[in-house]
Amino acid sequence: MQDVVAGIDIGGTNTGIGIVSHEGNILAETIISTKCKSTFDIYIKRLSAEIEKLLTDLEHDVRLVGIGVGAPNGSYNLGAIVDAPNLEWKGILPLCKELSKQTGVPSVITNDANAAALGEMLFGAAKGMKDFVVITLGTGLGSGIVVDGKLVVGNDGFAGEFGHIVAKVNGRQCGCGKRGCLETYASATGIRRTAFKMIADSNQPSVLRNITYDKLSAKMVTEAAKAGDPLARAAFEYTGLILGTRLADLVAILNPEAIFFFGGLANAGELLFDPTRRHMEEYMFPVFKGKVKLLTSGLQDKNAAILGSAALIWKELEK
Amino acid sequence: MQDVVAGIDIGGTNTGIGIVSHEGNILAETIISTKCKSTFDIYIKRLSAEIEKLLTDLEHDVRLVGIGVGAPNGSYNLGAIVDAPNLEWKGILPLCKELSKQTGVPSVITNDANAAALGEMLFGAAKGMKDFVVITLGTGLGSGIVVDGKLVVGNDGFAGEFGHIVAKVNGRQCGCGKRGCLETYASATGIRRTAFKMIADSNQPSVLRNITYDKLSAKMVTEAAKAGDPLARAAFEYTGLILGTRLADLVAILNPEAIFFFGGLANAGELLFDPTRRHMEEYMFPVFKGKVKLLTSGLQDKNAAILGSAALIWKELEK
Repeated sequence: MQDVVAGIDIGGTNTGIGIVSHEGNILAETIISTKCKSTFDIYIKRLSAEIEKLLTDLEHDVRLVGIGVGAPNGSYNLGAIVDAPNLEWKGILPLCKELSKQTGVPSVITNDANAAALGEMLFGAAKGMKDFVVITLGTGLGSGIVVDGKLVVGNDGFAGEFGHIVAKVNGRQCGCGKRGCLETYASATGIRRTAFKMIADSNQPSVLRNITYDKLSAKMVTEAAKAGDPLARAAFEYTGLILGTRLADLVAILNPEAIFFFGGLANAGELLFDPTRRHMEEYMFPVFKGKVKLLTSGLQDKNAAILGSAALIWKELEK
Repeated sequence: MQDVVAGIDIGGTNTGIGIVSHEGNILAETIISTKCKSTFDIYIKRLSAEIEKLLTDLEHDVRLVGIGVGAPNGSYNLGAIVDAPNLEWKGILPLCKELSKQTGVPSVITNDANAAALGEMLFGAAKGMKDFVVITLGTGLGSGIVVDGKLVVGNDGFAGEFGHIVAKVNGRQCGCGKRGCLETYASATGIRRTAFKMIADSNQPSVLRNITYDKLSAKMVTEAAKAGDPLARAAFEYTGLILGTRLADLVAILNPEAIFFFGGLANAGELLFDPTRRHMEEYMFPVFKGKVKLLTSGLQDKNAAILGSAALIWKELEK
């Protein structure tokens, strides 16, 4: 009999469900729609039924020992999703309580970036590290912080909002209602905004001038930069300046061993890493100079969301 | 027989030594000079002899169970003082090893701001709190961060350098070699620099115009502001803007329950707290708005350095 957990990744559109071993192998997985036109209660029942089905379909005997969930606005302390803007159900959703009631096993929740950090520690490139940060560079910028081998959750369960520190006073409008948040510069969306600002500010020729804002993707900026487009390269340099400066701040506060980049924009590789590292070192407090590794996530090509949620509950069961 | 610890506060000029009970009572204390023209070995022997003397002079029987040390550039991980600019002995000073050899009890070291945070938790206003930050506003700005009831020391033992995050790109020259560090704005020295810049930039009458830079103290700026001097009040407003913005960043990263101010500039009270709170709330990530308390340290009028060092070793002995 093998002990396994369920790792669940709740997104606005789909919910990924995986059965994960203690070694980080995904034994089975499936996807259900999050956008079902039903109550939250019915969604939880479907979720539990799908986990049950995955377990019984496995060829060998397993025992479910817990469930980990990663979700936007997931509060570890409350065991709930709180006012998630991209879900149909509003208010405080007591996900863990309901899920445990249905399945009879402990369940725990956190936000996606925190789950990514735990996944990195248990199954990724942060194995053996006790102090590190995972930065997810997707539509926004998320962060999961590990101090002395433990995820930092904070007093209300919402720590790790590094994407919403002020990168520029009175800067770009952010989805959170503030201005100048780091994620409006350093993210897939951020570099798109930077490229468009540079198109407007300069007369520099660029292949990007033929693309509408709605069609432009971070991948296109990356490809243009790889092909030598000077404006696209300048967009990466600026992104690295803003991100590097703020990472130097993060290092001054937390003194981590490494910072991992995960997500779409991290695929740009040295195009992003080189300017970020350079500017981070430029603004680094002397005692930390040359000491902090900037690395690509070890889960970059894997189902990191499922593995992260699974890592969350495996860690919890250790307690 | 009562168990006691020694709390030691090493400064560039003097070293404070106190015998401290588990309840945070200082049973005896003394001061020796740090600026002795002798080797580090001899300094350690004097330190041990003074602890011994304080113990034997006590009227009741006590047993020394450990020694805690707070020192600039004190590395918890190394048990050493590393390249302290204000000490006569250079390089890595293996203080804990030598002190334990002399006294036969465990000893542990950290920097002054970290010790202040532990003192706040055990004997001050952070009793019962698990996530908080202590900001020391003296000549510089130090910070001690507590996450989930434990001091954040980081991978090299130097976490908590919040005073050296970049408040302004290409800003004021800092003692650390960088430019624009937060402590060049938000500290006793910082507000002095701000007042002088405002004297230069404006034609506003002010009592501060009659004081030389070398004679001007944060206390004078505070007194002028209390008396209604508009320039001095503007200096506090600016200090609160810079500090408040960056505290909003710190909250986004760590989600603490409270932030404590300690040290000379904290005595300015609402003159400092009001603009800092206002600007912190203005730049706060929505989920944290109105939730984080800005408080005066509960050790503000006590020998916080000795109590902090004592708290450090009491916490260590709990492990």
